[in-house]
Parts: sequence; structure tokens; C-alpha cells
Amino acid sequence: MSKKLTIGLIGFGCVGSGLYEVLNQSKLIDARIKSIVVKDPNKKRSIPQENFSFSRDVVLKDPEINLVVELIDDSEAAYEIVKSAIAAGKDVVTANKKLIAEHLSELLELTKKYGVSLLYEGAVAGSIPILRNLEEYYNNDSLSSIQGIVNGTTNYILTKSNEGIDYATALKDAQELGFAEANPTLDVQGYDSKFKLAILLKHTFGLEIDPKELLNIGIQNIRPQDVKFALEKGYRIKLLSRAEKIGNDVVGFVAPQFIDSTHFAYEVNNEFNAVIVEGLFSDKQLFIGKGAGSHPTASAVLSDISALKFDYKYEYRKSEDGDARFSQDFYLKVYAGSRYPEILDEIPFFSVDEVYQSKDYAYQTGWIHFEEFQQLDPNRRENLSLIVLPDNILSRKELEAVVTAAEESLEYA
Amino acid sequence: MSKKLTIGLIGFGCVGSGLYEVLNQSKLIDARIKSIVVKDPNKKRSIPQENFSFSRDVVLKDPEINLVVELIDDSEAAYEIVKSAIAAGKDVVTANKKLIAEHLSELLELTKKYGVSLLYEGAVAGSIPILRNLEEYYNNDSLSSIQGIVNGTTNYILTKSNEGIDYATALKDAQELGFAEANPTLDVQGYDSKFKLAILLKHTFGLEIDPKELLNIGIQNIRPQDVKFALEKGYRIKLLSRAEKIGNDVVGFVAPQFIDSTHFAYEVNNEFNAVIVEGLFSDKQLFIGKGAGSHPTASAVLSDISALKFDYKYEYRKSEDGDARFSQDFYLKVYAGSRYPEILDEIPFFSVDEVYQSKDYAYQTGWIHFEEFQQLDPNRRENLSLIVLPDNILSRKELEAVVTAAEESLEYA
Repeated sequence: MSKKLTIGLIGFGCVGSGLYEVLNQSKLIDARIKSIVVKDPNKKRSIPQENFSFSRDVVLKDPEINLVVELIDDSEAAYEIVKSAIAAGKDVVTANKKLIAEHLSELLELTKKYGVSLLYEGAVAGSIPILRNLEEYYNNDSLSSIQGIVNGTTNYILTKSNEGIDYATALKDAQELGFAEANPTLDVQGYDSKFKLAILLKHTFGLEIDPKELLNIGIQNIRPQDVKFALEKGYRIKLLSRAEKIGNDVVGFVAPQFIDSTHFAYEVNNEFNAVIVEGLFSDKQLFIGKGAGSHPTASAVLSDISALKFDYKYEYRKSEDGDARFSQDFYLKVYAGSRYPEILDEIPFFSVDEVYQSKDYAYQTGWIHFEEFQQLDPNRRENLSLIVLPDNILSRKELEAVVTAAEESLEYA
Repeated sequence: MSKKLTIGLIGFGCVGSGLYEVLNQSKLIDARIKSIVVKDPNKKRSIPQENFSFSRDVVLKDPEINLVVELIDDSEAAYEIVKSAIAAGKDVVTANKKLIAEHLSELLELTKKYGVSLLYEGAVAGSIPILRNLEEYYNNDSLSSIQGIVNGTTNYILTKSNEGIDYATALKDAQELGFAEANPTLDVQGYDSKFKLAILLKHTFGLEIDPKELLNIGIQNIRPQDVKFALEKGYRIKLLSRAEKIGNDVVGFVAPQFIDSTHFAYEVNNEFNAVIVEGLFSDKQLFIGKGAGSHPTASAVLSDISALKFDYKYEYRKSEDGDARFSQDFYLKVYAGSRYPEILDEIPFFSVDEVYQSKDYAYQTGWIHFEEFQQLDPNRRENLSLIVLPDNILSRKELEAVVTAAEESLEYA
């Protein structure tokens, strides 16, 4: 009943070498790595050099290999490899979130054309089986929201910030511990979280949204004064990837958020990831696990490989439903902090709740219209830390009701 | 590709009526409840009386019905119903943990004989998809442990106890909120948690253990002094169902445990359930969700129904592996408290670490040999609160090493 898998592994970095160890140590899966392709013939690796080939064609043109596991860093090269592998009739497992977020639609067409399967559990939240659960387990519930801490690097830095360690030191620690890349831009500016959000939008609500359409606010501008504000209010700052339904609209974005101790993600610290799924019937579900690192990600890749022994495919049942519509027409309650008060004045607040100013720092809180804010010149968002406040999303209609009620109470006052 | 499901629903209590609502509100699943069988014709129900039948045969003998959803309280009656349904060639979904824990082996034989599927996700940890994940996602990793808060009633009572509310009041509150049954024995004495542990042992380690073989220590004897001890040390008391590997041995039991803030279950409060799975590669994974109640359990039942549309069966792959052996030959570090110091003296401690006595309370901490303790006359365990301490399991070999090291350090002292 189960299929014999002969694997071509492309890439032997952190996850690739982890997978190699895991596959050799795990007794329960009968799959063989036939070839391993790497780019640099001169790099020192943990296993002898004779295990490696240096041309993709060794894998792509080998008819015996029926599964390509793609684990390289370069998402453009990965795109070419995955396309070629699918066209060669091979199943593909990848953990490349950028690749999937940017090219899923085209790749799915190809998998249909060539009758193969493309799995990528390792691309979102490392070891947490979130895609499989969205596909299989929550395929019948009406999901109302999904949110998560899906980037271990930023969660580590924010955890340390909450403990009073400054950003630069925390980033350096994260790099030394192997949680952060030498160039941390993709992580700290929220791009990595955004690619994962795009994938979650597809599996939660059936929506294919170009990552370019999704706003990502990172943590790079957060200042000690913002952290102080959080501590005073009993909040912690977490970088959340969020999508939720407001009526038939689905809204989604990546931004740092103040959360209080009642929030499921409050205790999710350091390099841990978490995903919170809310369904009409299942209520809130929280998944926590390690989001990065060699073995946790490799375990997700291995689980995909194992599923392919039984010809598993994502069914994308949420996409068939099709009544969800992506929207940016909603209001968000935010805190905006800066050393330069004049920068705050340029933010198109719909209404301002609080204004604070001291010698070296200023902040304002209030409601912004999301789309309007998103269209703001990105240069104007520099030197500005934007952090979402709790109880923070209202539709246009809901906000109007709040405003009307406030006006009426003024009239009667 | 998907199967048309015609459902016979047996039982219309909390979960049954929840399922009815959920199935009618959820658009994504195409399954029809043809008949609903209940026992009492005179009971008032949320939908009109003409929807009900009063004989099981209405479901069991209807050839059009291909799925029996069994949601009655009485596990002996459920046993007969499930056997008959399987023998009639119908798939079965149940949420009855006692039924599954006590009769799984026989029922599995029957499902093989008649070529049907038996699913029971709702039987363990309500809305948390733990069985599906153990079956599908963790089918290839080497799991080293599973532990969980799988009973909402006791977790609610313990949460209130940790907040200083006495046991009787907490129990009454739980009953008023609908978390605890009128007769709470099965919950507070740990039987419910034990049935769930037996099911988890099967899906995690492939072991079929008669629940009678499993020790369950409940929370009924916990006194305010024990809670005070916990608070002083920064612990919380949680009722855990635990199973873990020590070498090739698997140990398992249900007992209250002191856990500190580094434990994944520390923040799992009130009626929430949690399951922590630890794998060789995936590391620790935490699942949190509502463990009881009409809709959360119904959502698990619904997910099973949905899976049956695609002829899903549990594969029990862990059972094929077969190198795990259930053992009670290990040492456990415990706290034993009582109003009567002489009761503590009857506990067969292997070694005692601490002895405390005041006018109205006494406790001792130390290591016990699990099997020896289990064989203790249950009457002697009355008036005794036994609570597992952190860092608490050692094999015979490990304990001997600790003892030898201690003796050597004495010699050199």
C-alpha cells in the first residue's frame, strides 16, 4: 500500500543536514536518500565529500528518484528546481516559505498538470503541524481567525527586550545562538512572518494573496520607551502574523502587538513559535513548538516525506468554498512612538485617544484606517514604532457605531 | 471521490445536540442525520419530538445509514451499540473514552472483520486534535513522552484551589458551570484521565494497557495545606496523565503533580485541556484547547465524520513497531501529605528527603518504587494526598547511580 520513496536531496545546510540525521536515525520511515546535491564543492560538511553531487541534474534527471526534497536558501534557485522537479513527474517537499508564498498558484497548476504532490509543512512554524491540521482537521469548521508567532528570531529578540536587554545586544545574542541570520533583515522587518502569513491565508481561508499586498511592520524600530510603555501596562510585545474574518471579509497583516496576560501567546517566549486557530465550534486552539532549528524543521519535512509514502496531497478545500474576500477597509487601534513628535503628526489617525510627549520621546494612540496607513510613504514610517493595541480591529460599520454612540453621549451630557 | 454519509445519531445529550447544531450550521460538510435515537421519550429536548426514535434498531437495521455516531453516557450500552453497528457494516464515530479504553482491542478486530472504520477523536482532550496528530503527523518520529491535562473538571477545581478557593466550593462552581457531573467521582478520582491515558498509550507507543493496570491518583484528597506548600514553592498543582519512555520501557500513570513556571502546562488553567508531545526530532509540542463542552467535543466528532467521507482509518503504525514494553519498575519522587502522620509512615518510601509535622498536618517527600506503591492497599491511600514532585522519574539503574554517588560523597566527607 505504501509507496517506495527514493529521495534526491537538494541543499545540505541546517535543515538538510538535520533531515539526513533524522532520516538515518528514525526507524519508522522507509525512504532512501539516493543523491545529495550542493552548490559549493569546497565547503566542509558533516559527512564525507563522496556523498555529494554538484549538479541538480543528478537529481532531476534520475528516473529512479521520485521525490525531490528542496532545502536551499535561495528562493529564486529553489523556484527553478521545484518547477523542474514537478515537470519531471517527481513529488516535492520544500520548507521555503518565500517560494511558496510567491509562486504557489503557478506551482499548484503544475502539480495538477503532472499529477504530483507538493508539500511544505516546514515552511510555516517549523515543527508545529499547522498546515496539516488546517487541511485535515479543520477542514469542516468555520474558521474565524488565525494568528501566530511564526518567527523565532524576532520572538527571541522581543523576549529579551521585554527583559530589559537592548535590541542590538538581543540581536547579537540571537545570532550567536543560531536563531538569527547574519543579515537579519527578512526576520526583523517582518518579511519572513509575512510569507508565512500568505501561506496561512491560503490554508485557513482559501485566499491567495500576493505577499506584496500584505503589510508587514517589523520590530526594527521598537525603542526602550515602547518596551517601558508595555511593562507599565502589563503588556508584552509580540510580532504577530494575523488574519481574521470580519463578516465575509478577511483582513490580514504582520505587526508587533501589545498583548496582555490573557492572550494565548503571552507565555510563548524565546525561540518558540505558536499558532492560535479559532473556529466557530472548536473555539480557540493553541499550538506551541520550536519554530526553527535543524531538527524541528527537519521533523516537519520528514512528516511530509512520510505522508508522501501514502500519496498525500493538500486538498485546499477552503479554496473551493470561496466566499471569503480579502479586505483592507478596516480600522486598527495602534500605538505610534517616535523620538520626533512631528513624525507622529503625519500619521493619518482617524481618531486620537492619547498624546504623550517628553524631552526625548513621544507617542500617540488611536484608530487608523488600515488601507490609508498602508498607503503612507514607507519613508514616513521610518523612525516610527507602530505597535497594535489590544482589542484592536473594527470594521467601518462597527467604528461608525462607536463614534455615533460617543457623539450621542456628548449631546446628552 | 468523497463518500455520501447518512448518519444515525444515538444520544442527544450535551455533545449529541451540539453535533446536531454544528452539522446544521457548518456548510463545509455534506452529511445528513437521518435518524436520532434517544432513550427517554418523555424528556424535553431542544428540537421537536418528531425528530426522535426510541429503538436502536431504527439506526442499526437501516441499510441506508452508513455511519453510526454514538454519543450516549452509558459505556456498557455504548459497547453493545458499537459492536452491533460494526457488525452491520457501518462506520462508527464515538467520543466514549471508557468504551475505547476498555474494549479497543476487541473492537479493532471487529472493524477489520467487517471492513469499517472506528474513529474517536472526541474521546481524548475534546477539541484538541491529538489522536489525528499522533496517527498522521507524528507517525515517523520517535516519541519519548506524552503528558496532558485531559480533564477539564479537575483542572477547573485545581485552578480555583490554586487561587485559594476550597475544594467543595470549587467543585460546586464547576458543577454550576456545567464542567462537572452531578456525580464527579470519575473525574476527581482520575478515572476519566486514566481512560484517556490508555487511549494515548495506544496511539503514542502502540501499547494496549487495560485501564485496571494503570494507577490513577485523583485530586479528592488534596488539602489546603498541600496547596499552601505549592504556593510557597512557586508550584501549581495539575492533574497529569503521563506516559514516557525510559529506555525501551514505557511508564504511565495519572497523578496530581507540582509543576513550576517552566512547565508547559503551568498556564493551562480553568476548563482548558493541554497535551504535550515530545519527540526525538520535533522536540516539545504543546496543544491547548477546550477539553469539554458541547461544541468543542462536537467539533472533534464532526472532524471524524468529515474524515470518514474520505474513508479515513487510524493506521496504528506505532503498534507495528512493537519494541516498547509497559513497565512499573521505576522510582517516582513524591510528596505525601496527611492530617495523620502515622499514615505517612505506612508509605513504602525507598528514601525520604524531608519530613514535616505541625499540629494539624504532616508531609514527607522522597522516592517511592512505583510498583510497590501501587500494590499498597487502597484503603491506606485514603486520607493521604499524594502529589508528584518535579524532576520525578528515575529508572532503577539511574536511582542506584544516584544512591552510589551519594554514598561515595559521604565516604569522602
